[in-house]
Parts: sequence; C-alpha cells; structure tokens
Amino acid sequence: MTYENSEYETMPYAQAWQALQNSTIHYKGRPVGNLAACDPSVESLNYDQCFIRDFVSSALVFLIKGDAEIVRNFLVHTLELQIKQRQLDFLEPGRGLMPASFKVMHDGGEEYLKADFGERAIGRVTPVDSCLWWLFVLRAYIRATGDLSLAHSADFQKGIKLIMSLCLVARFDMYPTLLVPDAACMIDRRLDIDGRPLEIQALFYAALLTASELLLDSQENADIKQAIANRLHPLADHIRHHYWLDLKSLNAIYQYKGEEYGELATNEFNIYPDSIPYDELSRWLPEGGGYLAGNIGPSRLDCRFFSLGNLMAILSGLTTASQSQAIMHTIEQRWDDLIGKMPMKICFPALKDRDWKLLTGSDPKNRPWSYHNGGNWPVLIWLLAAAAIKTGKEEMAREALKLAASRLPNDDWPEYYDGKNGRLIGKEARKYQTWSIAGFLLAKELLSNPEHLNLVNFEEVPMYAIPLAS
Amino acid sequence: MTYENSEYETMPYAQAWQALQNSTIHYKGRPVGNLAACDPSVESLNYDQCFIRDFVSSALVFLIKGDAEIVRNFLVHTLELQIKQRQLDFLEPGRGLMPASFKVMHDGGEEYLKADFGERAIGRVTPVDSCLWWLFVLRAYIRATGDLSLAHSADFQKGIKLIMSLCLVARFDMYPTLLVPDAACMIDRRLDIDGRPLEIQALFYAALLTASELLLDSQENADIKQAIANRLHPLADHIRHHYWLDLKSLNAIYQYKGEEYGELATNEFNIYPDSIPYDELSRWLPEGGGYLAGNIGPSRLDCRFFSLGNLMAILSGLTTASQSQAIMHTIEQRWDDLIGKMPMKICFPALKDRDWKLLTGSDPKNRPWSYHNGGNWPVLIWLLAAAAIKTGKEEMAREALKLAASRLPNDDWPEYYDGKNGRLIGKEARKYQTWSIAGFLLAKELLSNPEHLNLVNFEEVPMYAIPLAS
Repeated sequence: MTYENSEYETMPYAQAWQALQNSTIHYKGRPVGNLAACDPSVESLNYDQCFIRDFVSSALVFLIKGDAEIVRNFLVHTLELQIKQRQLDFLEPGRGLMPASFKVMHDGGEEYLKADFGERAIGRVTPVDSCLWWLFVLRAYIRATGDLSLAHSADFQKGIKLIMSLCLVARFDMYPTLLVPDAACMIDRRLDIDGRPLEIQALFYAALLTASELLLDSQENADIKQAIANRLHPLADHIRHHYWLDLKSLNAIYQYKGEEYGELATNEFNIYPDSIPYDELSRWLPEGGGYLAGNIGPSRLDCRFFSLGNLMAILSGLTTASQSQAIMHTIEQRWDDLIGKMPMKICFPALKDRDWKLLTGSDPKNRPWSYHNGGNWPVLIWLLAAAAIKTGKEEMAREALKLAASRLPNDDWPEYYDGKNGRLIGKEARKYQTWSIAGFLLAKELLSNPEHLNLVNFEEVPMYAIPLAS
Repeated sequence: MTYENSEYETMPYAQAWQALQNSTIHYKGRPVGNLAACDPSVESLNYDQCFIRDFVSSALVFLIKGDAEIVRNFLVHTLELQIKQRQLDFLEPGRGLMPASFKVMHDGGEEYLKADFGERAIGRVTPVDSCLWWLFVLRAYIRATGDLSLAHSADFQKGIKLIMSLCLVARFDMYPTLLVPDAACMIDRRLDIDGRPLEIQALFYAALLTASELLLDSQENADIKQAIANRLHPLADHIRHHYWLDLKSLNAIYQYKGEEYGELATNEFNIYPDSIPYDELSRWLPEGGGYLAGNIGPSRLDCRFFSLGNLMAILSGLTTASQSQAIMHTIEQRWDDLIGKMPMKICFPALKDRDWKLLTGSDPKNRPWSYHNGGNWPVLIWLLAAAAIKTGKEEMAREALKLAASRLPNDDWPEYYDGKNGRLIGKEARKYQTWSIAGFLLAKELLSNPEHLNLVNFEEVPMYAIPLAS
C-alpha cells in the first residue's frame, strides 16, 4: 500500500534533503559520509566527524534517492578503518571492532581518515554498536542496488568474518546475549545500561542474520557459519522469554521467591519482586500490551522501555509477531509518554533523584527528562515508521510524522528534545543535527513507499528453520 | 623472623585442624577437596560441594602441614573439569573456564565429579575467579613441593594456556583490565561490582605472573607469553594510576571538570565530583593512607574499600611498595571500620536505603552490614596476615588473630558476621564453614613462620623488567 499525500513532496522535505546533502563529507574528491551536525553557532568538538551510527539513516535516505555511491564509499572506507591485526595485548581495540567515528584529515596535500575508537570520546566509551550498524548498512546497500559482489569481495568477507569472530568468541559466561561495557551504543554515556542492554542484543541479532546471509558457503567459513546458526535460536529464545514484560510475566515476577538453587529454579536470575516497580507497571502496562525489558542480570531486571531496542527487535524479527503487535500497542496506548510532542522518547521513564545520581554518576547532561535520560530523539522516528509499517500501524507513524514536521524545521532540526513530553529543545542540543534531518526524511520516504521497508526489514525466520547446534 | 608463642600450638588450633580434616572429600579413595561447610543444623543446598575459591585457604594449610597429596589431587581433577572444547556457540561456558564448585556423585558403583559453572547457582552467576584462583593454588603447590613437573606436564601446560587465552582474547575495549559479568568472584551476588571489579583485576595480575613463570619457553607458547608480557605493565600502570585513592588523588578528582573531549583530557573517565562521597572520604582517609578503588568505568568510580582486592594487590605486587604501606596504614587507622570485632570487613561502607535497593536489587541477604554488603568474613584474616607480614605490620595481624581466636571457636566457625563492627553472627551464616576454619589456621601458620609467605607472595617485578609490547 502506498501512502498518497502530496504534502509529502513539498516543504519541509525539500529543505531537509538540501540540508542533508550540505552535510556531506568528501574524501579524495568523493562523498564518504555526513558530518554529525552543521551548527555554526557552537564549537564543533566531535560533531565535525562522521559517526557510524549517525550515518545509518543518511545512508538509507541516499539509497532510496538512488544515490548509492556515498554509501558504497562509506562502507569501503570504514571497512579500511576496522582493526584487522591479531590482538592479544589490549593496547588496541579488539580485532573486528569498528570506530565510533572518523574525520578527514589533511597532511600537506595528502588526505587521510582518522578514526576514533573511543580513545578520544568523553568517558572513553567503546562503540560496540558500530560494527553491527555497519552490517546493517551493508545489507541495505545490497538490497537497494543488487550489488552482491561488494559483499562477496575478499575484503568484505574478511571484515564480516572479523566482526562475527569478535562477537562470537568464547567469553566468561553462558548467556547467548552479548556482554558489553557501559555506554557502548547510542546511549554512549553512563545510564545503567552496562551488561546486556537490549539495544545491543537487537542489533546483534540483525547482524547475525546479515552475516549468515552474506558470508559465502566455503570450507573456511564453515565454522563461523555454524557458530552463527548455533547462536540465533538461543538468542531469540532468551530475549523472547527472559526480556519480555507484559501483565502475565509481571504477575509471574511478582510471585517470585528468591534464593532458588538448582537447575529447576523458576526465578533463574534471582529477581526480588521488591526491586521491580510493580505498582507503577501494573498501572502503566496497557491491556494487551507488552515490551522488551532493557537489561537482565543477576538480581537485575531493568523495566525501562527503550525505544531503539524494541523497534529494532521488531524489524529484525527478534520478537514474535504477537510480541511486535504488543509493543506497537503499548506505544499507541502510552502515546503521551513514549511519543509526546516529538517522536520519540529514547527511554521511559527517566531516572530521578537518588537513582539519577547513582546510576548516571551525577551526569548533568543526563538529568531527568533530558538527553539520553528520557529525552525525545527525532532520529528515532524512522524506526517507529518502519516498525509501524511492518505491523500494519502506519496511521500511528503518520501522526508522529505530522508532529515532527510541525516543529523540527522551525526549531532548526535539533539533536534532541527535553521534558517529559518533549516540548523543550534539548538543553545542549546541536541544531542541524544530521540524523534528525535524515531520520525525518527516511520516515517520510518509508511512509510514501512502504516497499522501502525491504531495506531495513528482516523476514521472520521460522524457529524450525534455524539450524540447531550440531 | 619467627613469631614465638606457645599458645599457637594449643587450642583452638588443634580443634580447627581437626575440623578442617573432617571436612575432606574423597574421590575414588583419595582426598580431593573440602566441603564448603559441615553444619548439621541446616539443609546443605550447595554447601556440600567443594568450591574452588573456598579451597584456596585449605590448600595452603595442607601444603604448610606437609600434606601435598590433597592439593595435587584437587589440581589434577579440577583441571579435568575445565572446559576444553572449542566453543563458538555460547551454549556452554567459554573454553578455559573453571567451575565454581564440584561434587562427588555416585552412579551405581561408579564415582564421578559433577561440576557447576554457575548453571545451578542462585542468580546464574559466572565464576570468573575460579581459573585465576586455580593458578594461585598451583603456584603455591610448586613452591611448597618443588614439583615443577606437574605444571610442565602437557595437560597442565594446555590448561594454563586455555586460561590465559580466555582472559587475553580480543574483546570490545581498550582497557588492560578484565570486563566481567556481575558477581563473578567472592562477592557472587549483585552488589554493584559488575564491570571491572578490583578483586578480579588483582587475581588476574597474579594469574598473569604465574602463567608467565610456569609456561614453558617453546615455539608454540611464544605468542601467549608475549601477550602476557604485553599486558602486565599496562595493567599495573592502569590500576596504580586510575584506581588509586588518597588525599592527593581525591583532591584532583574534586577539581575535575566534566565533558572533556580529546586525547589530552585529564578526567579520562568523565567522573563528576558530585558522584563521589568527597565529604565523607576527606574525613575518612587517614593522613598518609590510601587504597585502591573498587571499580572504574565511564562516569563511575566506586570509592568503597574492598578488602580482598586491596590485600591481593599487595601480595601480587600490583601496588607499589609505598601504596602497599598506605593501604595497611589505612586498615590500621580505620581499625574499627575495617576490622571491628572480627577480622575483617569484606567491603566498607555498606550500601544503604535507596542505594541498597537499586544496587543489590533489594537483596535481603545483602542488607546493610550483612553478608557481602559490609559483613565481616573470617576467611579474610589470612590475606590480612600475609599482607601484614609482607609490609612489616605483623603486630596488626597478631591483634586481629587474637580477636578471631576469642570468638570463632566459641561461635562454631561461622561463615560471616554482621553489624557495623561485626559483633553479630551472620544472619544466614553456616557454622563450621570450612574456609573460616582454614583462613584462621593459615593466618596462624603464616604468623608462626613468616617464611610461608613465600607460598602466596609475588616478588615485585620492577617495571623495567616487564617486557614492553614488541
């Protein structure tokens, strides 16, 4: 079904498309990415770089607009920045890791790309999500262009394999989820998302599916392909079961006894009901609603709603079809909380008072209802639109897009909004933030032609079709 | 210098030695370890198993008493339980991991050992420390017996190499410390020690030194030995610099500006002074004192004093000689807080009120000043005694041992004590807890003959003697 509305062909879309093109970075005369922001009013700090995760929405817009060259260049050059050397000394990032960002540098007449793997970032955070997003962009590029030869080239095969090896190598425990350091994804400051945050798990699942699709069948790939196949089923099963929160699971948790020892324990993670906001949740969870929790660990269940993780879980098929419906139903029923006046809230609710102090380390940028701590991020609208199309909820996404269109251009495309309902322009938000512009354009393109969903959607893999461990 | 005191040859030591021997587990007719506790008054749960970390103090007592056989059997059989298979599917623990505990099972006339890697443990926690403690016991065994041939056997060489590979494999970030899941060591329940807890780092440093000493020089070991050598210096440097808290570093942190971007940032981890209990610390830190913080991450500096990590840092030489002196000085000056009426406090201060609720997940066993959350653990006295001998503070350790002797036997050797000063027997403490008995005996043996320090001490490696990365 195509969404017909001529307003979508007019302002502010033309203005946004122009602004997106204006932010293009060139390297050796060819487009290679976009600046994170083009706000002339403040010091650039690292906003003069191209961030891998920020470029995702831009890449998708360029692909839809028929401009595949910049995406191809981005993929090729960021792959060159990937750590390739065998590394056993921990003086460098792990092999397979991709940088958070890069910048075009000039040395005399020579240009080169300088990568940042977190060694210059505030708080020295590690961009675990970069290599997962890179695979996501690669798959979209192939779907848009049909150019499988790029992914099948020796360099790309090696790069994909390195990413998978980094993610699948033996570590210390037995969960199928990825254990990552704090602030290793879009929420790149401390916000109590260390451990096994949902966002990383959803991206990881999509990355496993992508690598499984793109790695050639060969003798040398046999082990890694088997390892990928072995991981998919347990990962999906673990998330669908342990991360899922709805009234039924909340009732089960509410009845949990602690201190269960042995293989048959029902309360496997030893969650104490008193640690859960069961009173608030029992009122907040809509009938028929549900969502994936933010994190799970020993005696820990993070009940906050994280939008990127939940929406990516829908797109990647990490959730079942009925779970996906329940998540979209929750967003619809809790519109004021999760969409408010600017789609959409990065997480809900905010950490406040002592919780804020303890769990953010008193971070003033992440004060309650600001920035990552319950701020509203325009870039997320494309994920909302894509998930809405996939679940037959386009009307919701159209409403959200209207809200965004009524404010974003007038506010000069801020990075984020503050306040419980997202009515304040983010206290430290840059203007002309590229992914706010691109996310908005992308949502519009998806709603105008839902076939573009193909670029970011993963068809559900029937569980019986996922090979079990041999 | 030998500590002369005939009371050390009398009760309660004879009683303790008898109780330790009574807890011995036999496997195929030979001693192989000790039960965690022999308390007939309560259900055994998993206290009928031999825990790797619990056996450490027993092993050292047996070695000092000239009974090396049980230690050798323990080393051989736990090595057999180590995960040896290549593992890329995460359905099993990582290759190289050692179990938390094992139990002798009977199947008809056959005996076998059943290992627990955390899959039956409360909260499903991962015993990362087991493989590090195993190396510690192996080294002590060799120092006591001179039996290097055991460590040089093919099986042991392979086991050591697997442990090192597990610890040194490329992961997601660039710190030389080990990122581990929550509750991966002696504190095996949630207590906000996830990430890079000091205890694991100190054990890891000792393990690197041990492996470096025991791995044969061969072509096939060249890579792993180089990787070990490459890691030692950055790890020690990182801990000595970033984890160290004294009045000088507290003053530096107190002046920190947030939001520093770039390679030259002085506040590398973006710590906000408001997140630090600077008022309490400025009063608590004694003149000339200092200690290693519990953890570091983005916007996170855990200022609690953790005894095991600090004492093991002294023994392993992870701290400089002057830092070691400052730690012991802190313990001496804050005797009521850190020793109290039962040596010694596992960590100080306790998490209370909302902090307890948030950071333990409302764990009733870890209520303030109980169990891991500021309880007193008799087993720690052997680490205190060893560190005291190393730093010339034997008198402190003698005082502590007197305190312990006056209460432990009368209280039937509880697992832990509660209350700010440790005057209450632990609310859920087992009695006849083996490592309370063994820790007490070991402290006595160390003080009676300080030459036994050799079993657990690591001579300081001059930094210039640690090969740098090639």
